[in-house]
Amino acid sequence: MPRPGLEHRFRVCLHDTDAAGVMFYGHIFRYAHDAYEGLMAALGSPVDALIRAGCRLPLVHAEADYLLPLRHGDEVWVAIGVESLGATSFTLGYRFRDGSGALLAQARTVHVHLGQGGEGAAPLPGGLRAALATAAQAGQQED
Amino acid sequence: MPRPGLEHRFRVCLHDTDAAGVMFYGHIFRYAHDAYEGLMAALGSPVDALIRAGCRLPLVHAEADYLLPLRHGDEVWVAIGVESLGATSFTLGYRFRDGSGALLAQARTVHVHLGQGGEGAAPLPGGLRAALATAAQAGQQED
Amino acid sequence: MPRPGLEHRFRVCLHDTDAAGVMFYGHIFRYAHDAYEGLMAALGSPVDALIRAGCRLPLVHAEADYLLPLRHGDEVWVAIGVESLGATSFTLGYRFRDGSGALLAQARTVHVHLGQGGEGAAPLPGGLRAALATAAQAGQQED
Amino acid sequence: MPRPGLEHRFRVCLHDTDAAGVMFYGHIFRYAHDAYEGLMAALGSPVDALIRAGCRLPLVHAEADYLLPLRHGDEVWVAIGVESLGATSFTLGYRFRDGSGALLAQARTVHVHLGQGGEGAAPLPGGLRAALATAAQAGQQED
Repeated sequence: MPRPGLEHRFRVCLHDTDAAGVMFYGHIFRYAHDAYEGLMAALGSPVDALIRAGCRLPLVHAEADYLLPLRHGDEVWVAIGVESLGATSFTLGYRFRDGSGALLAQARTVHVHLGQGGEGAAPLPGGLRAALATAAQAGQQED
Repeated sequence: MPRPGLEHRFRVCLHDTDAAGVMFYGHIFRYAHDAYEGLMAALGSPVDALIRAGCRLPLVHAEADYLLPLRHGDEVWVAIGVESLGATSFTLGYRFRDGSGALLAQARTVHVHLGQGGEGAAPLPGGLRAALATAAQAGQQED
Repeated sequence: MPRPGLEHRFRVCLHDTDAAGVMFYGHIFRYAHDAYEGLMAALGSPVDALIRAGCRLPLVHAEADYLLPLRHGDEVWVAIGVESLGATSFTLGYRFRDGSGALLAQARTVHVHLGQGGEGAAPLPGGLRAALATAAQAGQQED
Repeated sequence: MPRPGLEHRFRVCLHDTDAAGVMFYGHIFRYAHDAYEGLMAALGSPVDALIRAGCRLPLVHAEADYLLPLRHGDEVWVAIGVESLGATSFTLGYRFRDGSGALLAQARTVHVHLGQGGEGAAPLPGGLRAALATAAQAGQQED
């Protein structure tokens, strides 16, 4: 039973693959970001609205482990969760599974809130932080 | 003898290809745009500076013909030229050739200058139009 | 009421946009191809299976007209149809609309079936041609 | 003084950026891979030739740290080095700097050699391993 914002589904398209016959590794971050956009929309803070409002939440770290090839035509399920939540930043985790539940890949991204003046990290907006805290709890209850 | 801004070179990278073993057709427009950015920089109107200045020159049309496959590792030369120049728009042509001069693909893009108020097409900035006119002449002399 | 294979939906993601604030024009062909993959799957000839079977159906032409900007977060509906069907090739048309039905962009792709020996165009496989003919009729009845 | 295969240069293109005005984080891996392809070509093992020969060297891990924004039009230098070399795998490091030498981002990728039979990791081909060892030494001498 998919939970809004915490699960994202895609099919590996031709343009995701490369001449080696599997998904080009860097493209997994496009899908991670799509899942992140879904999460933020479900939390009431769509990324497009944040950007238009001048809220800057750049990634400072991204990583992925590739366990099994993602092949053209494969259906992939992305489960996204809040791994940690700080005063000015948060860490998201992603698990990519096929239809049988086999883990294909996992990823992690770290996002920092920048203040308006370019002075570096700033406290997360209160509403966003509260929503992320709720999402973090939802994930822990599931584990 | 490459002429500044009128020629662009790239090598077909793994991420340009797909599981069919050749460049994914849509990616050719990334390289066309790179050549366009090179042309505009050579004309003294870099695209990044135009965007930062609020100058809006969106594409209203793009097309490409694919004659031969672009394979991983191939070196490709892009010749770009001004095909036509109107009061508010211009058309660019692109020819993609391999090292032996064989035509691999060709493309065309149409760019329109939008006014600040969203009221539609507006006259091209004078300096840009003059530079494009010079580039158009340079191309005609070569033909 | 979406019809299987003839309609494709997507949301404009952050990575689809560029610093000018709208979708990068070349990326529309990724979504056109996703719609094409959906059509072919609905017709019983998934593109991944065709490629694995060595069936070569490269694009020889692609074009798009951009009428309105596709902005980050926009939901877009792609209607795909068979515009023409020849002995060795077929032409697909795509209409990109927003939720209100406004036409944002349209595209067209031409696909040719290549024979195994690299000798050029070859008759379309019979089953695929019949399925495309049915899809072409379905589209005409709707117009 | 650029050393063949160990340095790669690119300019941040419009299609690298997103509506937030800077390079979309996932795209840095395209440039990391381009640098990797340049290294492998310099080492006498071009990636396209390896793939055509059936040599499988998939990435099992990728990560990046983003220190400063990569903006449209920026010229970026990528220094690539062999960080570690095992019997069946190797780790590459990448440093992305601007023209003044400021570190913009860094990345790391881990590549594993898979045997033909799908039985998992296999010893790196001898010639490739020797070339990587030489590149690793060249990098250490520079540090």
